[in-house]
Amino acid sequence: MRLADLATRSSISASTIKYYLRVGLLHPGQRQSSTWSIYDDSHLRRLALIRALSEVAGLPLESVRRVLEVVDDESVQLHDALGTAQWLLSSPVAQEPTSHSAQRVNSLIERHQWQLSPDSPHRRVLADALDRLDQLDFCPPDALLDQYAQMLSTIAASEVGPITTETDRASAIEHLVIGTLLYEPLLTTMRRMAHESDSAQRSKIS
Amino acid sequence: MRLADLATRSSISASTIKYYLRVGLLHPGQRQSSTWSIYDDSHLRRLALIRALSEVAGLPLESVRRVLEVVDDESVQLHDALGTAQWLLSSPVAQEPTSHSAQRVNSLIERHQWQLSPDSPHRRVLADALDRLDQLDFCPPDALLDQYAQMLSTIAASEVGPITTETDRASAIEHLVIGTLLYEPLLTTMRRMAHESDSAQRSKIS
Repeated sequence: MRLADLATRSSISASTIKYYLRVGLLHPGQRQSSTWSIYDDSHLRRLALIRALSEVAGLPLESVRRVLEVVDDESVQLHDALGTAQWLLSSPVAQEPTSHSAQRVNSLIERHQWQLSPDSPHRRVLADALDRLDQLDFCPPDALLDQYAQMLSTIAASEVGPITTETDRASAIEHLVIGTLLYEPLLTTMRRMAHESDSAQRSKIS
Repeated sequence: MRLADLATRSSISASTIKYYLRVGLLHPGQRQSSTWSIYDDSHLRRLALIRALSEVAGLPLESVRRVLEVVDDESVQLHDALGTAQWLLSSPVAQEPTSHSAQRVNSLIERHQWQLSPDSPHRRVLADALDRLDQLDFCPPDALLDQYAQMLSTIAASEVGPITTETDRASAIEHLVIGTLLYEPLLTTMRRMAHESDSAQRSKIS
């Protein structure tokens, strides 16, 4: 298809697509002459991915570019690609977490026998979130954290399992990296739904 | 305490606190003379709440103000306060979701007997998320959505239950509204941890 058709089918403007081509976020089409090229389904798919990362996951374009580099780099192992992408996507933690919260996170990881890299950014992010809740006098008890951890371990097996057995490396990495990120809005929205429903049931009883 | 002490103890600058006082985000202290007032723990707590909503939940100050209005309004019922706050905090959905995704969301709500207001914003937000994943050819099967829904229903009961039996209305509303929002980073961070761990275990086996 031509650029105009690619724009129509992807619902992304031709000028934005040209920009993506220029900065290398999108791979070039098959050049037909000095003025036009042909694009295919791989371009449509990449455009959808760029939009999902920027709009659904809320990433700035520079981070989108770095995630795509990892996805495209054949030398990166599946597990390392996930780690790199998650690292890129974790919001930086400004303050050093308190040792109390850092210790709670370590205990949690031990209790659930999670295999986390010592410099995994999630440790600091979680400890920081606990610190903030502590300041509000609203820190979750360990029992609730354990309930979260148990259910997320079960779910992770359902989510990660089918992907890592895929034979096509590129789509496996894409699915692993993107699935971790793009399913997050599903989970948070469905949690809000569950809260609304639970609260509605209680308000009827009382 | 004086304003300077409030600033020290809350780690928020005196000029920012003065701004919050001016726009009504923070209630006035007890006036001692034309030049100074005394502040107490209620001010510390409110400042921590403002910071949590703006920094942890990522809300613009205008939305923080609207959430606090609901928390402060004695005439608003617990359940309605939660609904209003969630409404304010849901990102607006630009496109009308496809009827296919809207139908999937309706079926999901029916299967799990969730009591959701017909105009709950979560319906559109979830349908929109499904549409985006559909475009990526990466839409979750109903089985996974059901797994999410089941576990979130169980967790919602643990989360909402203890709060709604609190006797102090103000703190119950505060906990319900804030808990729904501020625990989200815990859940998404712990999910990333579970993915990293699951992926690490699989990469050792293979």
